Amino acid sequence: MNKIKVGIINVTGYAGVELARLLSQHPEVELTSVTGRSTAGKKLGEIFPHLASLDLMIQTELSEVDLAFSAMPHQQSAEEVIPLLNRGIKVVDISADFRLKDETEYPHWYNFTHPTPELLKEAVYGLTELYRAQIASARLVANPGCYPTGAILALAPAVKAGLIEPDIIIDSKSGVSGAGRTLKLQSHYSEANEDTTAYALAGHRHLPEIIQELGMLSPGQSPEITFVPHLLPMTRGILTTCYAPLVSGKLPLNEEGEEELKQLYQDFYMGEFFVKVVELPPHTKHTWGSNFCLIHPTIDHRTGRLIVVSCIDNLVKGAAGQAIQNMNLMLDLPETTGLKSPAIYP
Amino acid sequence: MNKIKVGIINVTGYAGVELARLLSQHPEVELTSVTGRSTAGKKLGEIFPHLASLDLMIQTELSEVDLAFSAMPHQQSAEEVIPLLNRGIKVVDISADFRLKDETEYPHWYNFTHPTPELLKEAVYGLTELYRAQIASARLVANPGCYPTGAILALAPAVKAGLIEPDIIIDSKSGVSGAGRTLKLQSHYSEANEDTTAYALAGHRHLPEIIQELGMLSPGQSPEITFVPHLLPMTRGILTTCYAPLVSGKLPLNEEGEEELKQLYQDFYMGEFFVKVVELPPHTKHTWGSNFCLIHPTIDHRTGRLIVVSCIDNLVKGAAGQAIQNMNLMLDLPETTGLKSPAIYP
Amino acid sequence: MNKIKVGIINVTGYAGVELARLLSQHPEVELTSVTGRSTAGKKLGEIFPHLASLDLMIQTELSEVDLAFSAMPHQQSAEEVIPLLNRGIKVVDISADFRLKDETEYPHWYNFTHPTPELLKEAVYGLTELYRAQIASARLVANPGCYPTGAILALAPAVKAGLIEPDIIIDSKSGVSGAGRTLKLQSHYSEANEDTTAYALAGHRHLPEIIQELGMLSPGQSPEITFVPHLLPMTRGILTTCYAPLVSGKLPLNEEGEEELKQLYQDFYMGEFFVKVVELPPHTKHTWGSNFCLIHPTIDHRTGRLIVVSCIDNLVKGAAGQAIQNMNLMLDLPETTGLKSPAIYP
Amino acid sequence: MNKIKVGIINVTGYAGVELARLLSQHPEVELTSVTGRSTAGKKLGEIFPHLASLDLMIQTELSEVDLAFSAMPHQQSAEEVIPLLNRGIKVVDISADFRLKDETEYPHWYNFTHPTPELLKEAVYGLTELYRAQIASARLVANPGCYPTGAILALAPAVKAGLIEPDIIIDSKSGVSGAGRTLKLQSHYSEANEDTTAYALAGHRHLPEIIQELGMLSPGQSPEITFVPHLLPMTRGILTTCYAPLVSGKLPLNEEGEEELKQLYQDFYMGEFFVKVVELPPHTKHTWGSNFCLIHPTIDHRTGRLIVVSCIDNLVKGAAGQAIQNMNLMLDLPETTGLKSPAIYP
Repeated sequence: MNKIKVGIINVTGYAGVELARLLSQHPEVELTSVTGRSTAGKKLGEIFPHLASLDLMIQTELSEVDLAFSAMPHQQSAEEVIPLLNRGIKVVDISADFRLKDETEYPHWYNFTHPTPELLKEAVYGLTELYRAQIASARLVANPGCYPTGAILALAPAVKAGLIEPDIIIDSKSGVSGAGRTLKLQSHYSEANEDTTAYALAGHRHLPEIIQELGMLSPGQSPEITFVPHLLPMTRGILTTCYAPLVSGKLPLNEEGEEELKQLYQDFYMGEFFVKVVELPPHTKHTWGSNFCLIHPTIDHRTGRLIVVSCIDNLVKGAAGQAIQNMNLMLDLPETTGLKSPAIYP
Repeated sequence: MNKIKVGIINVTGYAGVELARLLSQHPEVELTSVTGRSTAGKKLGEIFPHLASLDLMIQTELSEVDLAFSAMPHQQSAEEVIPLLNRGIKVVDISADFRLKDETEYPHWYNFTHPTPELLKEAVYGLTELYRAQIASARLVANPGCYPTGAILALAPAVKAGLIEPDIIIDSKSGVSGAGRTLKLQSHYSEANEDTTAYALAGHRHLPEIIQELGMLSPGQSPEITFVPHLLPMTRGILTTCYAPLVSGKLPLNEEGEEELKQLYQDFYMGEFFVKVVELPPHTKHTWGSNFCLIHPTIDHRTGRLIVVSCIDNLVKGAAGQAIQNMNLMLDLPETTGLKSPAIYP
Repeated sequence: MNKIKVGIINVTGYAGVELARLLSQHPEVELTSVTGRSTAGKKLGEIFPHLASLDLMIQTELSEVDLAFSAMPHQQSAEEVIPLLNRGIKVVDISADFRLKDETEYPHWYNFTHPTPELLKEAVYGLTELYRAQIASARLVANPGCYPTGAILALAPAVKAGLIEPDIIIDSKSGVSGAGRTLKLQSHYSEANEDTTAYALAGHRHLPEIIQELGMLSPGQSPEITFVPHLLPMTRGILTTCYAPLVSGKLPLNEEGEEELKQLYQDFYMGEFFVKVVELPPHTKHTWGSNFCLIHPTIDHRTGRLIVVSCIDNLVKGAAGQAIQNMNLMLDLPETTGLKSPAIYP
Repeated sequence: MNKIKVGIINVTGYAGVELARLLSQHPEVELTSVTGRSTAGKKLGEIFPHLASLDLMIQTELSEVDLAFSAMPHQQSAEEVIPLLNRGIKVVDISADFRLKDETEYPHWYNFTHPTPELLKEAVYGLTELYRAQIASARLVANPGCYPTGAILALAPAVKAGLIEPDIIIDSKSGVSGAGRTLKLQSHYSEANEDTTAYALAGHRHLPEIIQELGMLSPGQSPEITFVPHLLPMTRGILTTCYAPLVSGKLPLNEEGEEELKQLYQDFYMGEFFVKVVELPPHTKHTWGSNFCLIHPTIDHRTGRLIVVSCIDNLVKGAAGQAIQNMNLMLDLPETTGLKSPAIYP
C-alpha cells in the first residue's frame, strides 16, 4: 500500500520538528520531504538525533508531496505557501499568515501587507473542533496559534451559549518552547529558569485571532478581551485561566450552577476525542506530549464570575498535533490517526 | 555593645529557615533561640548546613528574647504567641492567626474558633508600607500572607485613588516553596516539575485578607475580588497580575494615561526603599532572595482596564524579609537594616 | 482477535504508571488488571488523569492474566510474584528481588532473606540485548535496575572484548523520578530543584547487579567497580559516564583508535533497534519518553583511558519500556512492538 | 572615609554582573566604573534591574580606579589588562589569560600566542587558600576557572599528603550559567532544560590548569588526569566527584581510615572560612549564592579508592566571589569582607 506523501517547510523550528516526530509514527502518511534554511544539506538526524531513523535529507525546496505543512515564520510562510497551492498541493499553515479574515489586521499586528487577501477568505481556521466540516474540504488550513487554541476552546461553550458578558480576561501561562528555537535572551536558560514574567502587555499578536473567533461565536456582540501571556520556567505547556461575568440569572451561583455549567461544556464537546471536560483543575503535565486539551469550567460563587481553566501542550494541540488532526480530515483519514498517545507523565 | 535578642518559633519550615538566614546577617540583633518540633535537640546546622555557623541548638521552648517570630502553622501559632505576649515579648506572627479583624472569618476559612478575639483588634497588619506607624508601636504584628503582599501592594495606589471599579481579578503565580516544607504530592519534584496548575478555585485562604485590606483603602466600597493562585515550577517568587476596569473618565486610554498612572504609583510609593515602580514588566528573578517588590502598572487601551503586575520573593518580602522589616520598626531600628541585599541574578 | 491479557501489580508508582501508559498503546496486549495499595477501589484515571481512557479500576488482587508485571518494592515483590508463578502466570519483576544470582547478597544489600533462592537460578536477568534467547523462554524475568541498564550497556562491548583493565569508575547522573513517587525530602521540589548531590557513597544497591553482570562478561576477572550515583534536577533520564584504563596495546591512542573502538561497539550492537552507538556525546533529552539507549565510546588520548557515556530514560529503557521489551519476547511478539516511539524533544 | 575605588571590565557577562552585585554590598570598596561592549552608554540598571540602585553608566573605557576586575573573554582580556597594569592599577583577571605558567599551552588550548609571557611568571594563581601570601603582594592575580576551583580544592589535601596514586578521574557537573550569557543553542532553555550531557571529551580548557596546580602540589609526580565536565539543568552550582586509587597501606579501608582522611582534610583547611569539610555528601544548593566550598572526602572500602565530592557556586567561589576574596587580600582588607553571606536555601 502506498502511503500519502507529506512534507514540512522549515522542519528545524520546534513546531517543525514536532511535526516530524508525530508524522514518523503516523500509519497512513509518509514524511518524504523536509526543508530548512541554514541546515539544508544535512541529515535530519544530525540536527535532531531522536529522528535519525527517518533518514531524511534537509532540502532547500520541497519535493512533490500531497500535502505540505508550513512551519515558516509569518510573512515568509505566505510566500512559500502560495506557490504550493498553485501546484495543487494542500497546505496546513502553522504560521499566522492565513488566520485573520480581515486583511487590514496584518499591517497592524504583523507589519506586512498581505500578498493574497483573497486567500484569507478561502482559508479555513483550523481549530478542528469548531470547523471540522470546512477543514475536511479545504485546500488551505490556517492552523491556530497556541494561545488561541487554549483560550478559544476554554471559552467557546460559554460564549456560544450566551452565558457570559462580553468582558473577558484571559491570563495565559506558557512554557518557553512557545518562544521558538531561535536564540534570544528571554529564552536563555539562566534567564528563563526560576523566573516568570508577563509580556506583550500592549497587545499580543494572538489577540486579534481570539477576538475574531470568539466574535464569530456570538454574532452581534463584540467581546472586550484583555489577554496577557506569561512565560513560565518549563519547556512545554500552556495553562489558560479565563474570567468573565456570568449573565445575571443564567446560572445559580452554587454547586448546582456548577453542575449545569459542566453539563453544558460536556454537551458542547460531546464526542470529541481530544477535548476533555475535567472535574478538577487540570495540570499542563497531564497533556505533556499529547494532543489533548483539558478544560475545567467553574463559578466564583462570591462574585458571579465564570472561571475556566484549560491546558494543552503548546507544541502538540497548540501546533503540530492539531495540524495533523487537520491533515487527517483533509486527507479523509480518521481524525485521530497517529495522535492517540496519552500524555507522558511524570 | 549588646545586640537585641530574638527568637524563632518553628525554625524548620521555609519561612523559619529564611528568617534564620536573614537574621544571621543582621548587624543589630542576635538570633539566640530557635524551636522546632520533630527536630528539637539537633543542631540547626545538621538540618540546614548553610546555617552551620549559627551554632544554635533547636529547642522545644523559646529562651528569653526581646522579640519572637512565630513561623508555626495557623491555630498552633496563636497558642504559642499568646503566652509570649503575656511574658512581655514582642511578636511578629508569620501565620494567619492575627491577620483578620473579623473573628467570624476564622471558623469559615481556617476551621477554628479564635482563642483571643480581643487580640485581633490590637494586632497590626504588617504590610509595612501601609501601616508603618502602627507597626512601630505594636507589640503584636500579623505578618501578611505571601499572595496578599504582592496583590495589595499592586492595587493599593489605584484603589486608594478611586481609579478602578470594584471588580477585581487577581491572577497569582507562585513558586513551590510557598507550599511549605511539609511533604505532599503537589510539591513532589516529579509532579511539580515541568507543570503548572490553578488551585483553590473555590476560594483560597488569602482571599479574606486581600478583601479586608483593599476594603480598608476604599471605605464605602466592597470590592468584588476573584483571586486564583497558580503553582509554577520554580522554587521562589510570586508574580501577580491584577485586572480591573478603570473608572470612566479618570485616565485617558493612551500613553498619556499610562504616564499619569505611573506617576500616581510613584507618588504613592515615594521614599519606599523596598517597593519600586518599574518601566517594564518585572521578572520574579529580579527579586530573588531580596526584600524588594517590583510593580508595573499599565492600561489596556482597547478595553479601558487597569493591568498591574507585581513581583516578590515569596519567602522574603512575602514572609521572612517583611517580618524583619517589621521587627526593625518595632525595635526602633532603621527599617532597612539587614535587608538591603539586591536580588541574586541569574 | 483476542488480545493477550496482562496486569500490573502496584500501578501507582512511577514504573507502574509508565507501564500502563506504554501498554495502553500496545497493539497486541490488553491491560486488564491493575492493583494498588492505598488507592484500591479508585479508577486509574482518578489518580492519573492522562490514563482516564483506560477505564480500569484499581484492585487489591490481580485478575486472571497471561503475564504480570510487578512494580512492587523489593521483598514485597517476591511475595506477590511467587504465587503468580505458581498459578502459571508469566512474570516480569521490576523490583530487585530476582536480579541477583547469589542469595547471600540479599541480606547484605536488601536486608531480607530471600524466600525462594531456587527461583534466583531460574530467573533470567532481563537486559534484553544480553539475554534475548533466555528471556524468550523464561517464565520469570528480573528486569534490570535503571542504573545497571545504562552502565552495563555502556561497558559490555569493552568488557567482553577484553579491552579494559578491571578498574572501572561508573559516575551516574539520574533524574528525580528514579527516587520514586513515595514522598521524601530529597524529592521535595524546593529541595531537589536547582540542586545536585552525590549519594550512596558507601555502596548503592545497584552495585552488586553491575558487578554480577560485568563479571559474567569477563569470566576469570573480577572487576573492581566504583559506582557513584548523583541526583539531578530533572524528572527523567540517566546519563552514565564510565572510565577504565585501556589494556595496553589494544588500541592506538588516537583518532584511529577511536574509530576502531566505535566499530567494535557498532558490531556488538549490530541489529539492535534500541541501542544506538552515536558520534557525539548524547543528551538524556534525546531519549526522553523512549526506549532507546544512546552510547558514545571514546578514548582519552592523554591517559589511555576508555570513556563511555550512555543515556537512557530511566522510566522506559530503565524500567517499564525494557519490561515490555521482555514481555514481547516472552509472548513471542516482535521485540519492538509498541515501543518504537522516538523521544519527545524538546 | 573614602572607599577604595574598583572597576569591572565587561560587566555584562554573568561573572561581571555577579561582581557588581557582591561589590554593591562591600563595606570598604566602591564600584565606580564598569565597562561593556554593546551596552556602553546604558545605565547598569537598564540591563540588570536588580542593580538599579548602583546608578552606574556602562562605559567603553574604565575610569581611574585602584583595582580592576577583568571579566572579558580570553585573549581580549590580556589586551585590556596589560595597559591597566602599566597604569599602575592592580588587576584580578577572571579570564584564563594569566592562569597557565607555560606560554606554550596558550596556542594549544586557547588558540592564541600570549602577548606577554613574562607576566605569566609574575601573575599569581588566585586560588586563595593555596596562594594567600603571594596574592596579598601581587599586582596581577589570575582568578581560577570554575571547574579547577572545585577540583583542586577537593584534591589538594590528598595530593599534598601523597595519599593517592597519580591516576585521577574528575567528573564535574555544572549549572548552565557556567556557559555564560552569550546566546548559544546549548544554553537555550528548551534544549538545556530536563537534559544532561557530557562535553569536551577530547579535552576541556580547564584541564591544563588542573594539571598545573595538582602537579605543583606533588613535585616529581605528573598526575594522569581525566576530566569530564557535564552540563546540568540548573542555573548555578558545580559538583565535582573525584576518584583516585589510594596509595597502598596509607589508610585502612574502613571507617577508621575514613576518620583519618577526614582529619587530614580538616587539618589542611583549618582556619579557612570558606572551605568546609563536611560529614555528608554536600549539595550544590548548600552553596547557592555564597562563597563557600563544601568538601566531603571518603573511601570506597571495596576498591581502595579515594572519592572526594566538592560543591561550589560557580559564579561566586568559582568566579566573582573568589575574585573579591583575592581583592581583599591585595587591598590589605580582611579576606572575608563582604563575602560572609550564607547560601540562600531553598
